[in-house]
Amino acid sequence: MSEHSGGPSSCFSWIDEARATRARAGLVRALRPRPAAAPLLDLASNDYLGLARHPLITEAAARAARRWGAGSTGSRLVTGSTRLHAELEAELADFCGFEAALVLSSGYAANLAAVTALTGEGTLIASDAYNHASLIDGCRLSRAGTVVVPHAEPEAVHKAFDGHRGRAVAVTDSVFSVDGDAAPLTALSAVCREAGAALLVDDAHGLGVLGEGGRGAPHAAGLAGAADTVATVTLSKSLGSQGGAVLGPARVIEHLVNTARTFIFDTGLAPAATGAALAALGLLRREPERAARARAVAARLHGLLAGAGLEAVAPDASVVSVRAPSPAAAVRWAADCRAAGLHVGCFRPPSVPDGISRLRLTARGDLSDAQIETAAGTVTRTAPAAAE
Amino acid sequence: MSEHSGGPSSCFSWIDEARATRARAGLVRALRPRPAAAPLLDLASNDYLGLARHPLITEAAARAARRWGAGSTGSRLVTGSTRLHAELEAELADFCGFEAALVLSSGYAANLAAVTALTGEGTLIASDAYNHASLIDGCRLSRAGTVVVPHAEPEAVHKAFDGHRGRAVAVTDSVFSVDGDAAPLTALSAVCREAGAALLVDDAHGLGVLGEGGRGAPHAAGLAGAADTVATVTLSKSLGSQGGAVLGPARVIEHLVNTARTFIFDTGLAPAATGAALAALGLLRREPERAARARAVAARLHGLLAGAGLEAVAPDASVVSVRAPSPAAAVRWAADCRAAGLHVGCFRPPSVPDGISRLRLTARGDLSDAQIETAAGTVTRTAPAAAE
Ligand SMILES: Cc1ncc(COP(=O)(O)O)c(C=O)c1O
Ligand SMILES: Cc1ncc(COP(=O)(O)O)c(C=O)c1O
Repeated sequence: MSEHSGGPSSCFSWIDEARATRARAGLVRALRPRPAAAPLLDLASNDYLGLARHPLITEAAARAARRWGAGSTGSRLVTGSTRLHAELEAELADFCGFEAALVLSSGYAANLAAVTALTGEGTLIASDAYNHASLIDGCRLSRAGTVVVPHAEPEAVHKAFDGHRGRAVAVTDSVFSVDGDAAPLTALSAVCREAGAALLVDDAHGLGVLGEGGRGAPHAAGLAGAADTVATVTLSKSLGSQGGAVLGPARVIEHLVNTARTFIFDTGLAPAATGAALAALGLLRREPERAARARAVAARLHGLLAGAGLEAVAPDASVVSVRAPSPAAAVRWAADCRAAGLHVGCFRPPSVPDGISRLRLTARGDLSDAQIETAAGTVTRTAPAAAE
Repeated sequence: MSEHSGGPSSCFSWIDEARATRARAGLVRALRPRPAAAPLLDLASNDYLGLARHPLITEAAARAARRWGAGSTGSRLVTGSTRLHAELEAELADFCGFEAALVLSSGYAANLAAVTALTGEGTLIASDAYNHASLIDGCRLSRAGTVVVPHAEPEAVHKAFDGHRGRAVAVTDSVFSVDGDAAPLTALSAVCREAGAALLVDDAHGLGVLGEGGRGAPHAAGLAGAADTVATVTLSKSLGSQGGAVLGPARVIEHLVNTARTFIFDTGLAPAATGAALAALGLLRREPERAARARAVAARLHGLLAGAGLEAVAPDASVVSVRAPSPAAAVRWAADCRAAGLHVGCFRPPSVPDGISRLRLTARGDLSDAQIETAAGTVTRTAPAAAE
């Protein structure tokens, strides 16, 4: 079959070496498919408002699949745009306070689209060191120069732009996914304006949780609808669905329609996901207190954990992060929680920007006070000794 | 508000110039959201088997949303893996003849994952000049060196690998999306084996159409399950749903689980899309003649168009491409078809690799003979003069 020394399979023998290296470092990951009726208390998902299983949302998904089809059948520019997509785009823009919106098949694709379409050769990007992988990949795909700036330091962005001639964009998560801390959006915007730069905010973990009724971090900062501000959101977290969107001035959205590769060369979002996200926004409008409840759950959870002496970061949104002494300790801690009936996120290298492993708890707005106490109790009881 | 000359909106004034340039070239794109009951005969979608609206498939989507939720709620590594995902992965691998499979949120994400995870610094990629945008972006994101080789020329891949020490991967579409021509997979595989290189095949337009019962181009070429061959597929075309997958040796799939950023840092595919794709595979198993019918429709359509003197490419799968004398003529031609009740794809720069504009017709397997004749008649009647 092969003239090469090792036969056809030898072209992947390097993979076995990479696997052995991971195993030695205790960093092997494996999938654990879950059953439909989860036996665990879930503080690991990004379903911040508990809408993924809400009957109104799942019914909307089912209805959309029946009415519009199981798939969108093509690129949004060919057959993949239904009136349901247009309706979701209008509602997203209106809810979040932006002029226009564009829906893509994932938040990841939305970030790749926004970063690449807003930058070009000669553009300077200032990208927060803790930004999400999809923003980082967007910077890598772009033809722009990228300066990675220290985490949450507007002054560093100011310095990065200093003396640069030509276009510039500051790129940041609104709420950082690992620690749940918020970006200093107001100060960042001021720095951008002084430099004539655009501001791109990934509001994946802000939408539905921050701002009036969950309108998101840019809305809370008074930046929604600003001529120089673009936001991305996911439909996969607080809206309980799948997909992503870019929000911004109409001319920016039109530019994306014409130039963003992950929009043009990708099949449109499935109708079920589109319909579910639209229904979730409707629910948020009718029940605006859901956002504040998610924040209150986070604050309560943090209070309990910090009160028990754990190193938990004060939450700015709905994520509560607790530091672990080592990757191995974090894995064991999460496993002990799981054995006690609690599902928590376990983040370790390379999924953490600073090399520090931690448990990541999501304070879903639909948790009862008793569930919050149970969760905090389990995390505290299973905590590794600090010196470990 | 701003100390900068033009105010906050001036940071995007370059977009207006880009727009004007596009307008002058006649290359402005706009979305046209479609109604649920399409009034046009559809030869533009990638729904090759007509499954997106098939009641068994839409019901499976609806059922999955009800049972498993509207969204998967997290990364596949945290809460986003359900048993439904595992079932789809097992069935995809079995159907297509590979050892293992990994489902991602889109075909685009699957290609980014496969290309980046299989390559590294020092790897040499030979990438077909007509490859899909997602493969090209994968090459750009990777840290590998990429040689773009002339379209469908195994000899060029051989030359590219000649003298290279270290890992190498040849990357190709199985069926090229614009012209619908097939890659010379057997010859490419031979060249790869001689060089000890891996072969990565994007079977987006082959699955469901080529191979026994629609098992895809790698299966047809005897490469499914080979130790040195990896395939990607989309769930968004012949399976009528949304999503993508990587198929290959188990060690490759395990490597992706541990290292592919668009897998690790992306929310898992929504249950509705997962369930719909699984149901579509079930239908293909029960009705294997669907694949051959799609190919027969394409052959018949091509026969009619070529017989009428149009410059149509002989189809290797289910796509029939017809050349147009200019971008403007292609746009007018497609508009004339639409006015006559026929929806066809219109591809022009920058969506065509060779700068040649064309109509792209998809020969859906569920078209009746009368519909094929109507479509061919409309395309012929509205054709621009060759000299235009
Ligand atoms: C900050 C941030 N941005 C973008 C994404 C990607 O969104 P999606 O999962 O919808 O692709 C995520 C998480 O997945 C995220 O945490
Ligand atoms: C050859 C090819 N690969 C990959 C893709 C991307 O797949 P998806 O639309 O499911 O993201 C497409 C089309 O969209 C395609 O034509």
